[in-house]
Amino acid sequence: MEQGLFTANNVWMLVATCLVFLMHLGFATLEAGFVQKKNVVNILFKNAMIISIGLLTYCAIGFNLMYPGEDFAGAFFGFGGFGLSMPEGDAGAIAYADGGYTYWTDFIFQGMFAATAATIVSGAVAERIKLNSFLIFSVVLVALAYPITGMWKWGGGWLDANGFYDFAGSTLVHAMGGAAALAAVLVLGPRKGKYVDGKIKPIPGHSMPLAAMGVFLLWFGWFGFNGGSVLSADPVAVSLVFVTTALAAAAGAIGAFIISYAMFKTHDLSMVLNGILGGLVGITAGADQMGPLAAIAIGFIAGCIIPLSVVFFDRAKVDDPVGATSVHLVCGIWGTLAVGIFGSMAGLKQLWIQLYGALAVVAFTFIFSYALMYLLKVTIGVRVSEKEELKGLDVEEHEMHAYSESVEESAFQLSIK
Amino acid sequence: MEQGLFTANNVWMLVATCLVFLMHLGFATLEAGFVQKKNVVNILFKNAMIISIGLLTYCAIGFNLMYPGEDFAGAFFGFGGFGLSMPEGDAGAIAYADGGYTYWTDFIFQGMFAATAATIVSGAVAERIKLNSFLIFSVVLVALAYPITGMWKWGGGWLDANGFYDFAGSTLVHAMGGAAALAAVLVLGPRKGKYVDGKIKPIPGHSMPLAAMGVFLLWFGWFGFNGGSVLSADPVAVSLVFVTTALAAAAGAIGAFIISYAMFKTHDLSMVLNGILGGLVGITAGADQMGPLAAIAIGFIAGCIIPLSVVFFDRAKVDDPVGATSVHLVCGIWGTLAVGIFGSMAGLKQLWIQLYGALAVVAFTFIFSYALMYLLKVTIGVRVSEKEELKGLDVEEHEMHAYSESVEESAFQLSIK
Amino acid sequence: MEQGLFTANNVWMLVATCLVFLMHLGFATLEAGFVQKKNVVNILFKNAMIISIGLLTYCAIGFNLMYPGEDFAGAFFGFGGFGLSMPEGDAGAIAYADGGYTYWTDFIFQGMFAATAATIVSGAVAERIKLNSFLIFSVVLVALAYPITGMWKWGGGWLDANGFYDFAGSTLVHAMGGAAALAAVLVLGPRKGKYVDGKIKPIPGHSMPLAAMGVFLLWFGWFGFNGGSVLSADPVAVSLVFVTTALAAAAGAIGAFIISYAMFKTHDLSMVLNGILGGLVGITAGADQMGPLAAIAIGFIAGCIIPLSVVFFDRAKVDDPVGATSVHLVCGIWGTLAVGIFGSMAGLKQLWIQLYGALAVVAFTFIFSYALMYLLKVTIGVRVSEKEELKGLDVEEHEMHAYSESVEESAFQLSIK
Repeated sequence: MEQGLFTANNVWMLVATCLVFLMHLGFATLEAGFVQKKNVVNILFKNAMIISIGLLTYCAIGFNLMYPGEDFAGAFFGFGGFGLSMPEGDAGAIAYADGGYTYWTDFIFQGMFAATAATIVSGAVAERIKLNSFLIFSVVLVALAYPITGMWKWGGGWLDANGFYDFAGSTLVHAMGGAAALAAVLVLGPRKGKYVDGKIKPIPGHSMPLAAMGVFLLWFGWFGFNGGSVLSADPVAVSLVFVTTALAAAAGAIGAFIISYAMFKTHDLSMVLNGILGGLVGITAGADQMGPLAAIAIGFIAGCIIPLSVVFFDRAKVDDPVGATSVHLVCGIWGTLAVGIFGSMAGLKQLWIQLYGALAVVAFTFIFSYALMYLLKVTIGVRVSEKEELKGLDVEEHEMHAYSESVEESAFQLSIK
Repeated sequence: MEQGLFTANNVWMLVATCLVFLMHLGFATLEAGFVQKKNVVNILFKNAMIISIGLLTYCAIGFNLMYPGEDFAGAFFGFGGFGLSMPEGDAGAIAYADGGYTYWTDFIFQGMFAATAATIVSGAVAERIKLNSFLIFSVVLVALAYPITGMWKWGGGWLDANGFYDFAGSTLVHAMGGAAALAAVLVLGPRKGKYVDGKIKPIPGHSMPLAAMGVFLLWFGWFGFNGGSVLSADPVAVSLVFVTTALAAAAGAIGAFIISYAMFKTHDLSMVLNGILGGLVGITAGADQMGPLAAIAIGFIAGCIIPLSVVFFDRAKVDDPVGATSVHLVCGIWGTLAVGIFGSMAGLKQLWIQLYGALAVVAFTFIFSYALMYLLKVTIGVRVSEKEELKGLDVEEHEMHAYSESVEESAFQLSIK
Repeated sequence: MEQGLFTANNVWMLVATCLVFLMHLGFATLEAGFVQKKNVVNILFKNAMIISIGLLTYCAIGFNLMYPGEDFAGAFFGFGGFGLSMPEGDAGAIAYADGGYTYWTDFIFQGMFAATAATIVSGAVAERIKLNSFLIFSVVLVALAYPITGMWKWGGGWLDANGFYDFAGSTLVHAMGGAAALAAVLVLGPRKGKYVDGKIKPIPGHSMPLAAMGVFLLWFGWFGFNGGSVLSADPVAVSLVFVTTALAAAAGAIGAFIISYAMFKTHDLSMVLNGILGGLVGITAGADQMGPLAAIAIGFIAGCIIPLSVVFFDRAKVDDPVGATSVHLVCGIWGTLAVGIFGSMAGLKQLWIQLYGALAVVAFTFIFSYALMYLLKVTIGVRVSEKEELKGLDVEEHEMHAYSESVEESAFQLSIK
C-alpha cells in the first residue's frame, strides 16, 4: 500500500477519535442541562470520571475482551490478555487492519466508544444515585459487559457469524447502554416528587442552553462515530456515511417536531433535541447501507418515536431525567431493525437476524446490569438519603455549588439585611 | 490520480464539513447569549430547526438549483432535478470534482453552508418574530433565494461569467444572509422598548459567556468554511487560507477594540466579539488571494467598521439584537470589494465587478426577502402579540423556561414565605 | 515525496492547528468558570484579545525569533527578520520541513501555541489586574519571552544542542507560562478577602459547567497540541501520541480523585478537572517517548501532585484563582523530568539535562516576567482600585454585566416593589 493512502486513512481515524472524544463533552452538557441546579456538579463529576475510567479499563482488559483475536471467531467470549501489546514496527503497522490505521489508532478509537455505554447510564440515573455505587457500576459495565457483547459482532463472535449487522453500534453501543440504563433505573426507583398521587410532575432541567449545546456537540461527534466506523478514509464510503448521518439527524428533528406538536400543542425544545439524537442513534446501524431517502425515513421515524416513547416510560413510572432509554434503547433497536427494512441489506431474513441480535445484546446487558445494580443495592446501597436528594447531591457529595454568587455581592447582601 | 491524494483531499473536505457544521452551534450560542433570558429557548429551537430544515431542503432541491450543471453556464437560473443522484462507482467518484472529493462530500459540504443564510436572519429578528412565520421564511430562503444567487457565481452562472470573485462567500453567504436579515427587520419593526421618546435603550444580552463561546466556535468553524472552499486539500492553498483567515480575525478584534474605545471610552466585549466576526466575514471573499499584510488590513478595517455600523443601524432604528446586519451585510460587502483593492486580483476593473456583483446579490435577496416577509405579514402575521413579547417567547411559544430552579428549592422558598 | 503523503501530512497539521486554536476557547471557559460572576466579562475580553494579539505579534516578530534559521544553531538568541517571507512555489513548499507541511502551516500551527503562554497567565492574575497592564504584559511576553526561550530548544538553540528534550512543550509552553504567572501573581498580590487574619477564605468560581467544559475542550485540543507536535502525520508516531496523551489525562483524573479525597474527604470537582489538565501537561514533554504504562504513571503522578500543589500555593499566599501555577508550572516541570525517568530516553544523565533545561527556561521567564510586571507596577500600575475589585471589573472596565435579567422582568420587579 502506498504510504500516502495509509497515512490519509490513519489521519481520518484519528480525527474521528477526536470527534468521538468530544461526544463526552456533549453528553456532559446535555445531562447537566437536563438535571436540576442542585445536581450539576455531581453530573459533571461523573462525566469527567467516566471517560477517564473508561479509557483505563479498556486499556487494561476491555480492548482484548472485545477483540480477542481470530481464534475466537464465532464465539461468545474470548480474552486476548491484559494490557496493550506493541505493533511490530512500521511494516506491522501498515499490515495491521489492512492499511486502515495502526494498532494504537485502533485502541484509542475503540476506547473512546467504550466509555459511551456508561455515559448513557449516567443521565438516566441522575439526581439520586450514590456516586460510589455509580462509579463501581460504570467500571464493571465498561470493563466487562460492553466488550463482551461488542465482541459478539465486532470482535468476530457468534452474532457476526450469524449475519447480524450493526455498522457503528445502534445495538452494540446505544441499545446496550440504554438497556443498562433501564435496568439501573428500575432498581433505583424514581426521584422523590416525580410521581405523586398518581400524577406525573415535571422536573424541568436547569439550563436549556447547556442541553442544546450537548446535542449539537453530539451531532458533531457523530460524524466521527459513524464516519470513523468505516475503519478507513475510503472517500465514497465515509462521505456517504456523512450524508446519511446528517440527513437522519435532520429528519429526526422534524419527526419529533410534528409528533410532539400534535401531542402537546406546543413547540417542545427537549423533544426536538432528543429527536435529533434519536435520528442519529437510528441511522447508526446502517449508515453505510442507506441512500439519502432511506436515511431520511429512518431518522424521521426515530424522531416520531421519541415523544411517544418518552410519554410511555413516564406513564410506566420509569423516571429517566434525560430520556436516555427512549433515545438510546428504543431508537437503537429501531435502527438495528431498519437495516432489515431499508437499504441494500433489506429483507425478511435479515430483519429477523437484526431483531434476534438486538434482543440478545439487550437481554444480556439488562440481566447483567440488573444483577450488578441489585448486588450494589444490597451491599453498599445505590440510593442517596431522602435528605440528600432534597438538598441536592452537589452539597452532600461534593461540598460545592455549581453556581456561586460573587463573594462581595453576597457580603453586601448580608450587610443590608 | 493516486488514491492517497484523492483520499487526503476528501478527508480534508469532510473535516471542513464538520467544522462548518459546528458553526451552527456557534451561531446558536452567540444568538442565545445576545438575547434576553425570556427568549432563549426560542432562539435555540430556531437554530436546531434551521440546520435540520436547511439540510433537507438543500437535499430536495437546493443542491440542484445551485449546481444545475454545465448546460446552464452563464445563466440566471437553472435546475438539475429533485433529490440527489448517485455517483457512478469509485472511478466516477474520483473523476467528480477533479479528484478533490466525492459527490456525497460535495453535497454535504455545500449543504452545511446553505443553512447559514437563515441562521444569520434568526439573530436579527430575534425576540419578536412568530415561530411559524420564521420557519416558513427560512425554508423558502434556503430552498430558493440562497441557491439561486449562489448559482450566479459558484454554479457557473452570469456573475461567474462576468469575472466576479467570491472565494468562500462574503457576498454569496454573508451579505446575502445579511440582506435577508435587514429586509426581515424592516418589515418586522423594532422590539418594544428599544426606541422610546427618541432615545435608544440598550437591551443587554443575557449571557456573555454564551456569546463569547459562539464567537470562538465560529472562528474555529471558519477554518473549515474558508479552508474547505479550496475544494481540495492543496497544501499551499489551504494553509495560506488558514493564515489569512486567522490574521484577519485577529486584526478585526484590534480594529473594533480601538474604534469602540475611541467612541465609547470603555472596553466593549460585544464590539470586540463582533469585530472578530467582521474580520472573518471580510476575509472570506479573498482568503486565497491575499498575503498576510493584506489579510491584516482587510480584517482591521472590518473590525473598525463594526462599531460605526452598529451605531448607524441603531440610529436608523433598525433593531438587530446581535448585530447581524453589521457583521454579515456590511462586512460582507466590504470583503467583496476588498478583492478589488488588495491581493493578487486588485484593480479598478475588478473592484467595479466586485461592487456590481455584491449589489446584484444583495438587491435580489433584499427584494425577495422583503416581499416574502410582507406576504407573511399580511397573511399569517409575523409578529407576536405585545403581551407575548413582554412575557417572552419561551413561555408563550414553548411553555418552558431556559433556566429553572431546582424543584425542592422552589418548594422550600414557597414554604418560608 | 509523493503528493498524497505530503498532502495527508499537511492536512493533519492543519487539523491540529484547529484543535490548538480551540484550546483558547477551553482556557476562556475554564477561567470564566473559576472566577466570580462580577469578573466574567473581563476574563472573556482578555481571552479574546490574547489570541488576537498573540497571532499578530507572532506574525510580526515571534516566528522569526523562535525559528531564526540554521545560522543560529546552538545559540541563545537569533532573529530572522520581521514578518513572514513567502515560500518558493510548490516545490519549495514540499522541501520545507521535509514534506511534513508548508511554510504557512508551520507559521499558523506555531502561532496558535504562542498565545498559550499569555493565556496561562490570565487565569492566575484574574479578578484584580488592570486590563491595560495585562494586555501590555501579554504582548511583551508573547513577542519576546516565549519565542526566545522556545528557540533554545525548538529553534535549534543551546538547550537543543545540549540534548534537552521537550516534545510538545511541558517546559517551553506550560512551565514557561506558569513561571510567568507566578511572577505576575507575586508582584500583584492576592485578591482582597482571600487571606484574612491568617485564614484562607475560599472564593468559589461562579460556574462549574463552564469550568468543566473548558477542561473537556482543552483535552480535545491537546490531541492537536501533542499530536501536531509530531510535525507530520506519521501514523505510528501520531497514534502513539494520542494513546499516551489520553491515558495520561485519564490517570490524572484518578490521581487527583484519590489524593483530594484523602485530603478533603469529599469528591472535589475542581481537583479532578485540574488533575486531568495536570496529566495532560505532564505527558506533553515525552508523549512520543512513552508506552501506555509509562504514560499512565506520569499522568497519575501529575494528578496526585495537583491537590498537594494547590494547597501548598494557597498556604504560601500565592493567590491563583484557577490553579494555573500548579497545573502548568509544577506539572510542566514534572513532565519534563519524567522524560529522564520513564520511556525510551530514561537515564540519569538525561534526567539531569531535563532538570537543567526546565530550570533555565523557568528562571529566565520568571525574572523576565517579574521585571516586566514590576516596571508596569511602578509606571502605570498593575492593580485595580479596592473599590473596583469589590464592585467587579466587569462594571468598571467594561460597563456591562456577564449576565442580565430580561428588561421587562426587571421593570416588572421594580413595579411591584
